Amino acid sequence: MLEKIDLSKKMGKKEYRQIMDSLAPKLGALQRECRDLKIPVIIVFEGFGASGKGTLINQLIQPLDPRGFQVFAISGESQEEQMRPFLWRFWTKTPENGRIAIFDRSWYRRVLVDRFDKVTPDAQLGYAYNEIISFEQQLADGGNVILKFFLDITKKEQAKRYKVLLDNKETAWRVTEGDLKRQKHFDEYKVMNEEMLQRTDTDFAPWTIIEAMDREYAAVKIISAVIKRLEEKVAEVKAKEEARAEEKKSENADPQKSTAKPESTEEGIQDKFSLRSSILSSADLSLSYTKAEYKEKLKELQGRMAVLHSDLYRRRIPVVLAFEGWDAGGKGGAIKRLTECMDPRGYAVNPTAAPNDIEKAHHYLWRFWQNVPKAGHVAIFDRTWYGRVMVERIEGFCTTDEWQRAYKEINDMEAHLAHSGAIVIKFWMQIDKDEQEKRFKERMAIPEKRWKITDEDWRNREKWDQYEEAVDEMLIRTSTTYAPWVIVEGNCKYYARIKVLETVIDAIETRMKQK
Amino acid sequence: MLEKIDLSKKMGKKEYRQIMDSLAPKLGALQRECRDLKIPVIIVFEGFGASGKGTLINQLIQPLDPRGFQVFAISGESQEEQMRPFLWRFWTKTPENGRIAIFDRSWYRRVLVDRFDKVTPDAQLGYAYNEIISFEQQLADGGNVILKFFLDITKKEQAKRYKVLLDNKETAWRVTEGDLKRQKHFDEYKVMNEEMLQRTDTDFAPWTIIEAMDREYAAVKIISAVIKRLEEKVAEVKAKEEARAEEKKSENADPQKSTAKPESTEEGIQDKFSLRSSILSSADLSLSYTKAEYKEKLKELQGRMAVLHSDLYRRRIPVVLAFEGWDAGGKGGAIKRLTECMDPRGYAVNPTAAPNDIEKAHHYLWRFWQNVPKAGHVAIFDRTWYGRVMVERIEGFCTTDEWQRAYKEINDMEAHLAHSGAIVIKFWMQIDKDEQEKRFKERMAIPEKRWKITDEDWRNREKWDQYEEAVDEMLIRTSTTYAPWVIVEGNCKYYARIKVLETVIDAIETRMKQK
Repeated sequence: MLEKIDLSKKMGKKEYRQIMDSLAPKLGALQRECRDLKIPVIIVFEGFGASGKGTLINQLIQPLDPRGFQVFAISGESQEEQMRPFLWRFWTKTPENGRIAIFDRSWYRRVLVDRFDKVTPDAQLGYAYNEIISFEQQLADGGNVILKFFLDITKKEQAKRYKVLLDNKETAWRVTEGDLKRQKHFDEYKVMNEEMLQRTDTDFAPWTIIEAMDREYAAVKIISAVIKRLEEKVAEVKAKEEARAEEKKSENADPQKSTAKPESTEEGIQDKFSLRSSILSSADLSLSYTKAEYKEKLKELQGRMAVLHSDLYRRRIPVVLAFEGWDAGGKGGAIKRLTECMDPRGYAVNPTAAPNDIEKAHHYLWRFWQNVPKAGHVAIFDRTWYGRVMVERIEGFCTTDEWQRAYKEINDMEAHLAHSGAIVIKFWMQIDKDEQEKRFKERMAIPEKRWKITDEDWRNREKWDQYEEAVDEMLIRTSTTYAPWVIVEGNCKYYARIKVLETVIDAIETRMKQK
Repeated sequence: MLEKIDLSKKMGKKEYRQIMDSLAPKLGALQRECRDLKIPVIIVFEGFGASGKGTLINQLIQPLDPRGFQVFAISGESQEEQMRPFLWRFWTKTPENGRIAIFDRSWYRRVLVDRFDKVTPDAQLGYAYNEIISFEQQLADGGNVILKFFLDITKKEQAKRYKVLLDNKETAWRVTEGDLKRQKHFDEYKVMNEEMLQRTDTDFAPWTIIEAMDREYAAVKIISAVIKRLEEKVAEVKAKEEARAEEKKSENADPQKSTAKPESTEEGIQDKFSLRSSILSSADLSLSYTKAEYKEKLKELQGRMAVLHSDLYRRRIPVVLAFEGWDAGGKGGAIKRLTECMDPRGYAVNPTAAPNDIEKAHHYLWRFWQNVPKAGHVAIFDRTWYGRVMVERIEGFCTTDEWQRAYKEINDMEAHLAHSGAIVIKFWMQIDKDEQEKRFKERMAIPEKRWKITDEDWRNREKWDQYEEAVDEMLIRTSTTYAPWVIVEGNCKYYARIKVLETVIDAIETRMKQK
């Protein structure tokens, strides 16, 4: 989930002050509403050392009534705590209804610092993850709102911040030996964090990644996220209470139900300033190859791919290649260059259209299971199960619960594929809006390509921004170490096709070396 | 979950015919309703070899319209199937909406036969369980009804049935070498089954244990359970559809909502014939000791316990002893005899009354977490977290969802305690209704004991049958290898106190030997 994060996000001080002035009173008001509605709230801060947890927690609590929250700083277990199950100290700190508990580091210590320091043995990791997930699920089922923030900075930035702290006598003590050890082994420790994010990102307690290089940006993003989640929960609890009151009355229903959605604070800010982890917009679409470069590379790569394809078959390794992207993003062309060099008995291209009646009558993942490749075969999906969190989400073909649950369902499915031995790669074919328009028009002009463009394509284009938001969220929540997303910069078709081929070849070669 | 099952359950042929004649048309009608409401149904049969899966599935499908269901017999993977992730062959067999898929053995093979045969390596078990649970959860979330039956017979009965099959040339082929190997290592294989039941008994896909010694009894219990679950689901789906229709109308609500509960078929049979796994009623309450026997045993045991208590302290082993039972069942007396011989610095008795305001404002397990013992200490709970699935269930202090979810929550909590090193034992103090009345009256007659009896105690007594049903279900769902329930036959107080002491001493001594 971290791989795709753009750490260059920034906000000016003046802008920051302006936005915070409007957010602070909202957060205060929401705290009072949660108190009145008896909603317990748990806010967890995790992230790299010196990523600013302390400072940001301080900014979060400024607008809050101090009688209604408590901050817990979690370090190593005391002797007293070591004598009890590891969740004991967290269970006993869970908030009373209507109160907010803020954790500066948390139960995740067990699978992070304690794992790194070998306090948690590897054999205990599976247990620890199951126990953590069960703990959060129980609390969420019991009505708790759970927000989890992960503060992300680069290794270089961390080193810089540690140096500033160490250079000052007053603050040097704050950098521990453990901090320096983790700084030294930053990449190794990052892998543990990534695994933690992947395994514990659930619909009942999702992670929000915070780009924490710039503190103003981070503070605004955190507070906005808290406001958004509390607004949703308050609306949900109120709706339930009203429904219950309605039932109790059992007289004729009140015609003016307050089903109006609360005005979203986040959207207000979003208009002026993007708080999203924008992945797509940071793709460099100027990347390109000339026709000559393309031809040369293509020939060489297709030759290698042909050999690797038969290696795959001999070694019985299944491969799943998933293609998503904007309409006219170049999926078809890339798939064609890939399959041209492959033995047709060893691959299948599975186009995904709107589900037919039989498919609609099953679980949404069922139809993709039909086409899971055999060992040694390559299954290429032209559009995929990700429809659930894109078109189905945006067009309202499934409920909010359903698409929010889908991230974990999809991750579980891909984990199962990877765990059974498959190479799983997902491509997002990225083009910009102008390029799309150009391609649409080209297709309209060529009679034998005109069928590729429908009215629906033009309609989808109008929802570009909505799609972009959904895709960004999808890329973060489902880019895993075992099934990564690859953004293919596609304005130049030559470049895109080569990148797809290179990525597939790299992945296969890496696997071949493993065993 | 198997340990407490009473395998002596039987039903006469005549009774069976009568009941089946009334059940069959109901099942047929429910199948049609599920088809119309587009509810997909998954029914899984697992259990020991020769426990009658084939015969019972045959009886289940008799009343069904053959166009609406399919039976899948699951044996080892074909070559084709081996080349795909292990869930692939099950995903592709999931039923279309409105249809019923019946599995004669299932995905559980992976953690049962394949585990026994070492086809599934131990290192893969954790993955397999997580993948199975995720699979069932996804299907349940997607609207599938999932029923799982486990057919239980004794080792002896299995041997007898195999012999009958082997003695006949026509049927001998049905007993495989694998069957005979598992028969030989029945107890070892049973442990794997028990672990499987414990780890996969969830609120969205619960197990029903079927006493399968008597085929008539088993058939009726299975069909009743299917009817009950489908009735519930049909009612739930209809209620949702009505609510949706209601919303759409958005005119004044229809005052006669059909919120009437469907008449339960199971209750009808239950009146005439108990289908419950009755654990409490099979306790032998005639067990007793004379006063002289009691005194002698008590002295000896208390002496041993005193020594063991300091051993526990030295070895830093925490102990959790949970006491539940009927009012006046003798909890207090048994706890007193236990603590008399213990160092007061090393134990605490935690009485559990109705929750206070602070406790009510937290998760229901929170208050018990406060009293989790330190390593080396003994925590005794006089009434416990099991209130959730007894009094709170029966008095409606929590919702059906909440108490059904609680079995897993409680099992998870106890697993966490046990996994952190604690000995966990749960006692159910069993007396009969007459004995309770006698004790109530005695207490009323003795001024210094009168406070122990309240009007509520007399009221609870009237709900004896409801409690017994809830307790039986609780005992099955939460008796685990890591935290077993011990039924204490308590009509004779002397006997009960000695059994409690003996059980605790046994458990500690066993642990001492382990390391």
